[in-house]
Amino acid sequence: MELIKKYQDIFCGKFNSLKFLKDPPELYEPIDYALSAGGKRIRPVLTVMICDFFGNNFEDALNPAIAIEIFHNFTLVHDDIMDDAPIRRGKSTVYKKYDINTAILSGDTMFAKAYEFVTLTREDKLPAVLKVFTKTAMEVCEGQQYDMNFETQQDVSLEEYLLMIKLKTAVLMGASLKIGAIMGGANEEQSSLIFEFGEEVGMVFQLQDDLLDTFGDESTFGKRVGGDILDCKKTYLYVKAMEKLSTEKSELLLKVYHDKNMSEDLKISKVQELFREAGVIEDCKVLMNKHHVNSMKALESINLKPEYKQVLSNFAESLLVRDF
Amino acid sequence: MELIKKYQDIFCGKFNSLKFLKDPPELYEPIDYALSAGGKRIRPVLTVMICDFFGNNFEDALNPAIAIEIFHNFTLVHDDIMDDAPIRRGKSTVYKKYDINTAILSGDTMFAKAYEFVTLTREDKLPAVLKVFTKTAMEVCEGQQYDMNFETQQDVSLEEYLLMIKLKTAVLMGASLKIGAIMGGANEEQSSLIFEFGEEVGMVFQLQDDLLDTFGDESTFGKRVGGDILDCKKTYLYVKAMEKLSTEKSELLLKVYHDKNMSEDLKISKVQELFREAGVIEDCKVLMNKHHVNSMKALESINLKPEYKQVLSNFAESLLVRDF
Repeated sequence: MELIKKYQDIFCGKFNSLKFLKDPPELYEPIDYALSAGGKRIRPVLTVMICDFFGNNFEDALNPAIAIEIFHNFTLVHDDIMDDAPIRRGKSTVYKKYDINTAILSGDTMFAKAYEFVTLTREDKLPAVLKVFTKTAMEVCEGQQYDMNFETQQDVSLEEYLLMIKLKTAVLMGASLKIGAIMGGANEEQSSLIFEFGEEVGMVFQLQDDLLDTFGDESTFGKRVGGDILDCKKTYLYVKAMEKLSTEKSELLLKVYHDKNMSEDLKISKVQELFREAGVIEDCKVLMNKHHVNSMKALESINLKPEYKQVLSNFAESLLVRDF
Repeated sequence: MELIKKYQDIFCGKFNSLKFLKDPPELYEPIDYALSAGGKRIRPVLTVMICDFFGNNFEDALNPAIAIEIFHNFTLVHDDIMDDAPIRRGKSTVYKKYDINTAILSGDTMFAKAYEFVTLTREDKLPAVLKVFTKTAMEVCEGQQYDMNFETQQDVSLEEYLLMIKLKTAVLMGASLKIGAIMGGANEEQSSLIFEFGEEVGMVFQLQDDLLDTFGDESTFGKRVGGDILDCKKTYLYVKAMEKLSTEKSELLLKVYHDKNMSEDLKISKVQELFREAGVIEDCKVLMNKHHVNSMKALESINLKPEYKQVLSNFAESLLVRDF
């Protein structure tokens, strides 16, 4: 992970030097607040790194990488309104700190700002980058819509769930890598393979996230364990358990999941028990592994130096076993 | 106006043939609803027309024109949430018909969709179009922020007011024309002049809108006269009247404007009276005329056939005297 760290320093050095404050402050202060909240900046770091791996020209990837990071944060600002989420990365979300209108308009401006950085992409690469970026933006919106639908949708099939996390999470990981590859001069076939790698890795990431949210160690995970359960989220574990459990047990899960009178701790432990009973932790790990294998298959056909492929492979591996 | 009608038919023919419905319907139905609500489509029609005037190649302008129309409607969908506006063009606004979350996410998707059409711009023109489009998007957001600020800001200066309408309304008119000119092959100097023409025309348009909202004829204007007054909007008339009236009278205007107990009709007529007393109708017309003269000055230096310049001049004139 040493090499990733190098690109993290490069990207964060650049990103932190940007000034987002200007007039009117009512619009740009919330943007500055949202963008300086931190986070791992994993997507843009991958963009910069892959560009350098392919073309030894990481500077060319900086502007599109910034665009990706701003876009990602824009989606968080708006999602937090829709999900009624008060806290993000230990701080008040934008709409809580300011208000809904501010969060809407500052978010819109961030979306435009992301395109401002896309616009700064080298002209010969601009059409290709713009196309991937825009397609991804649409898909992320579609993913968020499916996620919102699930809140009121009784039966969510596994297929629907997997489509949702693909759109909401995985494609942006794929696109971050693909845009880096394009900037590094990779051809269409190679860029598509790196997209596939990223998308598969993104699936692993989200499935692991579902698992950690319910069975993680609070001290390393950094969020309250059981949050998804308390929010009645239709996670992989829930969807799969509903599919596998007997009618009687699945009705019990449904009842416990939506019981408004049960204490939080009891609800979490009861749901955890039913998930264990259904054996969905193992299912989740099997599925993560399937996506991991897919990512490794895509990686195999990628024409990069072995040491670079090793970095990507280690990165994919790290998501499979992460506890943060 | 015959010639404008021709381009209106061309644009609307194309625009109405587009299919916006796809999965998930919860996301795309509101988009289809927002985009089929009609409106004059004046901005994209100008884009297509100017392109044809410069380059005799209107087809090249269709995709960027569609982008402009979708972007404009996206801003309306989000503005209506922020302004708490229940009705637009005689129909429920998106957030009223559906809900706020739907309006936020469908709006975001429209913004991305607008860029999808920008992406379809001829590659040789793409960087220039993308730059104008994105700069304009940022400015429109800034304009909306100033407009929101004015709701709670006690003193709004004339200068602040004019900056607000320039950003919120005029630059998009300018950009619609500029993008058309770029697509038609106009050089930088000519595209800038046409932008200036459009921006000045946009100022006239908005000032006339303020005037019609308070002193228009309801049957031709199509909206309730006095709406701005009831919404306590800081329009040109209000800002200028507050500047001109004696301390006593301006305090009265302030009081009447924010009186929550006065009947609507009485409030409107009292404010109209104070506006008349301040002489701000004439001031507004003088200012409109100043911007009209500016637009004609920009037009003078534009290298287009005299009959095309006449169309633009007639168009500008029509906004100056419109009663709709």
